[in-house]
Amino acid sequence: MDEAMAEHTIERIDGGITAPGGFEAAGVTCGIKSTGRDLALLVSRPPAHAAAIFTTNLAVAAPLVVTREHLQRAGSLVSALVVNSGCANACTGERGLATARGMATDTANALGCPEEQVLVSSTGVIGVQLDGERLRRGITLAASALGREGHRAAAEAIMTTDPWPKEAAVRVTTPAGVFHVGGMAKGAGMIEPNMATMLGFLTTDAAGEPALLRRALVQAAENTFNAITVDGETSTNDMVVLLAGGRSGVRIDEAGYPAFVDALHAVCRELALGVVRGGEGATKLIEITVSGARSPAEAKQAARAIANSPLVKTAVHGGDPNWGRLVAVAGRAGVGFDLAHARVRIGEAELFGDEEIFADREPAAAEHLRGSEVAVGVDMGTGGAGTATVWTCDFSAEYVHINADYRT
Amino acid sequence: MDEAMAEHTIERIDGGITAPGGFEAAGVTCGIKSTGRDLALLVSRPPAHAAAIFTTNLAVAAPLVVTREHLQRAGSLVSALVVNSGCANACTGERGLATARGMATDTANALGCPEEQVLVSSTGVIGVQLDGERLRRGITLAASALGREGHRAAAEAIMTTDPWPKEAAVRVTTPAGVFHVGGMAKGAGMIEPNMATMLGFLTTDAAGEPALLRRALVQAAENTFNAITVDGETSTNDMVVLLAGGRSGVRIDEAGYPAFVDALHAVCRELALGVVRGGEGATKLIEITVSGARSPAEAKQAARAIANSPLVKTAVHGGDPNWGRLVAVAGRAGVGFDLAHARVRIGEAELFGDEEIFADREPAAAEHLRGSEVAVGVDMGTGGAGTATVWTCDFSAEYVHINADYRT
Repeated sequence: MDEAMAEHTIERIDGGITAPGGFEAAGVTCGIKSTGRDLALLVSRPPAHAAAIFTTNLAVAAPLVVTREHLQRAGSLVSALVVNSGCANACTGERGLATARGMATDTANALGCPEEQVLVSSTGVIGVQLDGERLRRGITLAASALGREGHRAAAEAIMTTDPWPKEAAVRVTTPAGVFHVGGMAKGAGMIEPNMATMLGFLTTDAAGEPALLRRALVQAAENTFNAITVDGETSTNDMVVLLAGGRSGVRIDEAGYPAFVDALHAVCRELALGVVRGGEGATKLIEITVSGARSPAEAKQAARAIANSPLVKTAVHGGDPNWGRLVAVAGRAGVGFDLAHARVRIGEAELFGDEEIFADREPAAAEHLRGSEVAVGVDMGTGGAGTATVWTCDFSAEYVHINADYRT
Repeated sequence: MDEAMAEHTIERIDGGITAPGGFEAAGVTCGIKSTGRDLALLVSRPPAHAAAIFTTNLAVAAPLVVTREHLQRAGSLVSALVVNSGCANACTGERGLATARGMATDTANALGCPEEQVLVSSTGVIGVQLDGERLRRGITLAASALGREGHRAAAEAIMTTDPWPKEAAVRVTTPAGVFHVGGMAKGAGMIEPNMATMLGFLTTDAAGEPALLRRALVQAAENTFNAITVDGETSTNDMVVLLAGGRSGVRIDEAGYPAFVDALHAVCRELALGVVRGGEGATKLIEITVSGARSPAEAKQAARAIANSPLVKTAVHGGDPNWGRLVAVAGRAGVGFDLAHARVRIGEAELFGDEEIFADREPAAAEHLRGSEVAVGVDMGTGGAGTATVWTCDFSAEYVHINADYRT
């Protein structure tokens, strides 16, 4: 595998979801949100093979029900993906389900493709019916605006409280040829690392079997979308979809798999860290590395507990190297922990280890916390080899303001 | 049991931890905190039988190690309890352990009792050594200030970021005689309902076997201290201690047990709700009742998930009847949930049920959210009989300010 990895190169490029050949996109305004673009359309010609992962929340929203049905009916072949922001179409019963189906039908009619080849996705307020008329107007508008330049407008149209659009793309050069992977994501609130984490849409002009695409997507998401958290909340609408159109002529087989996963991982990582950087009220990206756990799973559980701790997140926000809070969370994380051998560092400064306190290093830690990218490390002291990294953002008063007034 | 309960009456009285006969207390200033009282002493004459529950956090602080040792060595007989605020004496290694032992020895010397009959407790910043000299000065001062009137000063001395002292007491009249239960608590931050939840100190002038005291304490804590959360954090220093001195002459046996538990429960409930009301930055008390779960344990897990959701807590803070967030948390709580039959209410207003949205009731819900005590209910829709109630507070920008600047 090392050899295979040495044989490919990955370069970051512009172009987002339409960087791979065969994809066109548009982002338009149809009045579902009070201001700004709120409907994104992505089209693949020829139809792409798809892999998708969905929310683990049991209160599944209507568009996810429809998207899963369509993937099954169409044998994972996808011509288009339509996404609205401003209304999640969740907890909307039979009527919401009919609206989600109508969203696919309208898109299929506008594009002239089978309705089961259309995936639908929604994000925004829960418990409000989605306006089918406005959707239809938006879909017509978007279908006439499709183009290779539409990636940015599409990335804008899926935003809710996101401060900026999240896009990424790479060019991959392999012995079998050149292909591309692109993507866009929506984050900000209700972000928790439990399977699909938010909206993530990925495209590639490589081709691959659905089973291989799925394996690659799950693997790439594990340490990216599934390793981030803003607020510990898992949404009703989360999905990550990968569309492989094949236009590059490169077919991903087992030999090409490492290059493909690397490329997917690079795009997912950039999008996922972008989601965290753009978390509600966020001012800092926090990288939490847990080591010395009894297993990788225990390491990730501890890292997640630290990442979701309001006391840790507020201390980082305040620039306070209050490492005791890291120990306190590690001790309550529900996994193996031995205080006698635990270690804590902030940046490069080890502040606690073998029950010794290194107070003289706190100024260095405080200096590190002044930056916009913060790294903290906790060794659980069990002597195990389990490690994991999770990313989150700090917790500011702005988070409270955003979420206290979200619907007003 | 109904009959037994009908035979006793419980009245709320003043006097906190010294309301029961045989207890004296003091709260003094010894300079561990930058301002205000920071050392509390509680003395029982004769020595009391004790029951205690401790933090489940694996990063156990030094005073808990010493207190557990002493309870064992003294056969659960306790003459005194000494508590400091301003420094948790947690993550302080061998030196911290020696300080905690010295705290007990100094107290034993000042009072003329065996050191193993002294319990010690600390709360405040983690990872800072506790100043033994200041402690000793405080202990000497407190020993000379002991009295029945000392309850309030003691309750003040255990505060950290608490906005006010938490005290409660009751007089219990039973066929076997009259006895009293008193208590004080410390809360505010690192509060999560996982066994012992914060510092809670309870006294009674009834007598009882240690096993019975423990059973009563665990039962009373289950729906009080273990049913509250401020921020989902379990501290390294949590303990709840019950001291039964016996001065009233009333001995609690199986016949008197229901009255005793009722009284303990009343005091624990008042203290626990006081901790939530005084949570960091709190402006509202939120009562979360989950019903229709597959079991009481699943109901409590869902109620805790809702209580710790930053999106729910900020919505309540903003007075927004955003019931969709309640559904979203119920769906990700990791327990049985059926969206088709789930119901949500805020105050008396049912806003969602059987997949129907009752938007016209939102004004009534918004009106309810304007109050300082808020009740929300979620039926998980499984048809099960599991119910649970958990209390929490809202999440304000003030919480962030308090915790971003806690050590500065």
